[in-house]
Amino acid sequence: ITVWWSRAWSSAAGPGRLDLRGIYPPIATPFTASEDLDYPKLEENLHKYAQIPFKGLVVQGSNGEYPYLSEEERVEVVKTVRRSLPTDKLLMAGSGCESTRATMKLTERMAAAGADTALVVTPCFFKGRMDSRALIQHFIKVADCSPVPVVLYSVPANTGLELPLDAVVQLSQHPNIIGLKDSGGDITRIGLIVHKTQAQDFQVLAGSAGFLMAAYCVGAVGGVCALANVLGQELCDLERLCVSGCWKEARVLQQRLIEPNTAVTRKLGVPALKQAMEWFGFHGGACRSPLQPLTEAETQQLRRDFSSNGWL
Amino acid sequence: ITVWWSRAWSSAAGPGRLDLRGIYPPIATPFTASEDLDYPKLEENLHKYAQIPFKGLVVQGSNGEYPYLSEEERVEVVKTVRRSLPTDKLLMAGSGCESTRATMKLTERMAAAGADTALVVTPCFFKGRMDSRALIQHFIKVADCSPVPVVLYSVPANTGLELPLDAVVQLSQHPNIIGLKDSGGDITRIGLIVHKTQAQDFQVLAGSAGFLMAAYCVGAVGGVCALANVLGQELCDLERLCVSGCWKEARVLQQRLIEPNTAVTRKLGVPALKQAMEWFGFHGGACRSPLQPLTEAETQQLRRDFSSNGWL
Amino acid sequence: ITVWWSRAWSSAAGPGRLDLRGIYPPIATPFTASEDLDYPKLEENLHKYAQIPFKGLVVQGSNGEYPYLSEEERVEVVKTVRRSLPTDKLLMAGSGCESTRATMKLTERMAAAGADTALVVTPCFFKGRMDSRALIQHFIKVADCSPVPVVLYSVPANTGLELPLDAVVQLSQHPNIIGLKDSGGDITRIGLIVHKTQAQDFQVLAGSAGFLMAAYCVGAVGGVCALANVLGQELCDLERLCVSGCWKEARVLQQRLIEPNTAVTRKLGVPALKQAMEWFGFHGGACRSPLQPLTEAETQQLRRDFSSNGWL
Amino acid sequence: ITVWWSRAWSSAAGPGRLDLRGIYPPIATPFTASEDLDYPKLEENLHKYAQIPFKGLVVQGSNGEYPYLSEEERVEVVKTVRRSLPTDKLLMAGSGCESTRATMKLTERMAAAGADTALVVTPCFFKGRMDSRALIQHFIKVADCSPVPVVLYSVPANTGLELPLDAVVQLSQHPNIIGLKDSGGDITRIGLIVHKTQAQDFQVLAGSAGFLMAAYCVGAVGGVCALANVLGQELCDLERLCVSGCWKEARVLQQRLIEPNTAVTRKLGVPALKQAMEWFGFHGGACRSPLQPLTEAETQQLRRDFSSNGWL
Repeated sequence: ITVWWSRAWSSAAGPGRLDLRGIYPPIATPFTASEDLDYPKLEENLHKYAQIPFKGLVVQGSNGEYPYLSEEERVEVVKTVRRSLPTDKLLMAGSGCESTRATMKLTERMAAAGADTALVVTPCFFKGRMDSRALIQHFIKVADCSPVPVVLYSVPANTGLELPLDAVVQLSQHPNIIGLKDSGGDITRIGLIVHKTQAQDFQVLAGSAGFLMAAYCVGAVGGVCALANVLGQELCDLERLCVSGCWKEARVLQQRLIEPNTAVTRKLGVPALKQAMEWFGFHGGACRSPLQPLTEAETQQLRRDFSSNGWL
Repeated sequence: ITVWWSRAWSSAAGPGRLDLRGIYPPIATPFTASEDLDYPKLEENLHKYAQIPFKGLVVQGSNGEYPYLSEEERVEVVKTVRRSLPTDKLLMAGSGCESTRATMKLTERMAAAGADTALVVTPCFFKGRMDSRALIQHFIKVADCSPVPVVLYSVPANTGLELPLDAVVQLSQHPNIIGLKDSGGDITRIGLIVHKTQAQDFQVLAGSAGFLMAAYCVGAVGGVCALANVLGQELCDLERLCVSGCWKEARVLQQRLIEPNTAVTRKLGVPALKQAMEWFGFHGGACRSPLQPLTEAETQQLRRDFSSNGWL
Repeated sequence: ITVWWSRAWSSAAGPGRLDLRGIYPPIATPFTASEDLDYPKLEENLHKYAQIPFKGLVVQGSNGEYPYLSEEERVEVVKTVRRSLPTDKLLMAGSGCESTRATMKLTERMAAAGADTALVVTPCFFKGRMDSRALIQHFIKVADCSPVPVVLYSVPANTGLELPLDAVVQLSQHPNIIGLKDSGGDITRIGLIVHKTQAQDFQVLAGSAGFLMAAYCVGAVGGVCALANVLGQELCDLERLCVSGCWKEARVLQQRLIEPNTAVTRKLGVPALKQAMEWFGFHGGACRSPLQPLTEAETQQLRRDFSSNGWL
Repeated sequence: ITVWWSRAWSSAAGPGRLDLRGIYPPIATPFTASEDLDYPKLEENLHKYAQIPFKGLVVQGSNGEYPYLSEEERVEVVKTVRRSLPTDKLLMAGSGCESTRATMKLTERMAAAGADTALVVTPCFFKGRMDSRALIQHFIKVADCSPVPVVLYSVPANTGLELPLDAVVQLSQHPNIIGLKDSGGDITRIGLIVHKTQAQDFQVLAGSAGFLMAAYCVGAVGGVCALANVLGQELCDLERLCVSGCWKEARVLQQRLIEPNTAVTRKLGVPALKQAMEWFGFHGGACRSPLQPLTEAETQQLRRDFSSNGWL
């Protein structure tokens, strides 16, 4: 495959490369009872998150229910977060759409709205045709036009496809693609991605708290974790233990986080994340339809998954 | 589950129920070289389709690349088709979005643009939470507000989920939900859906030409078939043979259609459909990115799948 | 791929080819309370099956729990059935093992024990390596040495793999391979197999009652149906309606059989088949461990699936 | 779920529990050109493995092609290994069969043949019925009768099912079940299993070299790794680095092992493992049919996966 971009650009990219290391909550989007955006509650959450040593925030990862927001809403939420966010914190904005042209346009709007970096999910509707060739073309076009660095985003539980390893390796050479959020959790794959992209200073972020410690172990530099909306300080503690090599203490903490994390992701999803946020002093509230509130049995299950690990 | 709508409405719905019987091409969307909508080419295709005894057209099924069109474009294409379409042909317009609120709004716009019926795909991004409860709520809300009858749309190859049978049966009782386009191709399921919805005069359409004859055999009333963009008359012939009980002739024709159909759907997708359209005198053209043109090897495979069955 | 066998043999094979047309129950294997083979109960079942116009019996399809029988038991059961079976009924004996050498040996023993034809399942343990190349080699070696004609057997629900279409087409040219039992139920695939093997007079059997009518519709010649252990006469009635072109009556009957069939196969499996056999006057009894008896809730579900369709 | 065994037994089990910590090659089974067992070559391999600081050997894990061996052969291979193996090395023998009764019998034979512990794979043929209830019953019956401790074995790539977490936790309380070989590689699950079984001193072994370091990181105590047949010393080095907390050095080594490991497991399987063994001075040889030798292209791929990581 031909390399489209200039080598001069590439070699220049190294020194100034945006440093992604750290923990990011992919923030939930609060709605009113009538399912409209609730900006005051969003800002209260942001105010509380400012007390936690996050590296930054992800706005409109999957947990932000971005597929349920209009393009205008997506941009407006980013603007709102930008106004509240201290300048030393990164704002990573999800700008992925199904078509390349829509993704390019939204990425530019996100940059204009204040995003430091764009998180671009794999398009997935025609999954039978989304092979490496198509995905590489897509991400190159987006990265070529993006005013801010691009982070790739692979989340097979939602999209039904994984960004293939050879595509990641190829794309890691693009000067404007600086990392990957991998939510699939295949630790062998994550280790291999780190290995095969080490010449590019490519930065891998664990996409879930369940395998955060293991990801650090094999070379990831941080995590974008739904659970950080709820137990943000604890995830920053886990980061610190991993980075400082306190693996035994890290293991104890990591193990207590797996069940709560699974509950708010794979098992019960965004409605559970928002419910747990309420228990821990944040505004979660309802989801937009068709996401339904938890049933009573699901709520009890969620509570058990936190309480049996000593968090409630 | 409670039934939300009025029984009076339900009993009144029977007599005037829209008759869906027949064959529909889910029309492809032509683009210019710069990926803009090419309305003149669309109209030339429509002019040619008018010579074929279709029951109507599906605008913005998956083959129309609807996830790559903006909302404005989706509505504009429907208006364009409506202007060209004889009044005795049905216009079935795809109006599904991820959120219920967006789907409701787009369905209303599609009706205003001239759609006779709305084809509503299952939302799928948070597939782990799209159980029967969520999907039933979604479709009921859409059907409650839709000015035109709703046809459910299950297409697991693209969405990664199948509308569960119990949800179909429950939704078939809604007076404004009149049928299902099933693209999954599980003939046992299709037979069972016909069986369990027979009291509701619920109309099942085969979502692909590969199992069209078998679907008629177990009680489907028609088909929405990508291949009808290419071999439309032949699919109408197959319909006639099935409806008139000429099963032996039908079988011969059906068998010759399987490989071409698989080629333009599961195997090579929309780019192949558009390429084959070119060979048969229609305007296909390119797809929007990230869909890529066929490789040379894929084009040869496609040609073989048509020629080895006597179509080229 | 080279064709290994002699063309002379091949051309000679046509006239005398074993005729598989008709319905076969893949008979269940009765056990005593201590999980030993219960030959008297087996013979009582055989006596009752003799009253039903089956084409023959399948001994040690999946429903016979063959993976739980020793090689000696597998052969002994075939001998027992052969002694009871009228000479005008076919005995199709499952002889598939994981290794080619074991399959070859068992196929020879089955023929010696009185099998008219051998049903050979795809080996599946190393599923990542069971591509067409490996499977074609396997079946050719078995067919080359088998004293009786071989029927291929694809059952993805149990094996996790489907015998690829290109392998079926290639193998259909072997003079000692006369057909396929396809339990996957993909009716598009079944139609295409019939189409691409028509020059070989290759005989396709539906592997489940749920898609029996549709399979006849696209060109299958019979069915091996678990449900025939319970509703054997009804399945023979369905066969007669399909073969004689009474599609409307066939459809009514087929639809009533889908839920009972799904219950004793995909949904609740062999324990449900054996429970239903008890209700209909046959000996089912327990399964060998690790198969567990139905729970009370499962038994009620099973009863509903029969009674709601008018069978109980 | 009731606990069937005596608490007295359970409490007594702790002190004498067999210590599984360390690295085990699941040894390949050499065959002659005619596919017979080649005991002299097996013994030469064993002689070489004796130079490597393995904790022991696994005889008849999947890489031993156990589904292709007769019961007699399986036992005979274990006897042969036992004769060669120093008494301070553990012999873990695969004794899983599809039926509980066959597994119980073979486990007893393996113990008599000299196995220190039995590795019991999940039965899998009727995968739709192999829920926690069935699997728990199966393993309890086997563990109750086994003269040696039992290690559970979950290998979804071959069996198509994963031993559910709740079943593992329940079974970890059985005094004669001492650990799990987990080949699925879901590091979140492995961490959670360690967490939820810590009161039982349950020992988890990574089932593949690709995630060995990550597994140590979250609490595993060793690994059964196909690649140890080829790069045994290197895997023992990796173990030492992990156990002694040299995570940076461990990471470098781990990363170089991922591609060779994937090549001899998921990507190219046992034939590749045996080919690589030849390159590294061991006897691999052919596999039993239906496993086919590598194609020329596959062999080149395999070589690249070793050479690009500096091993060839």
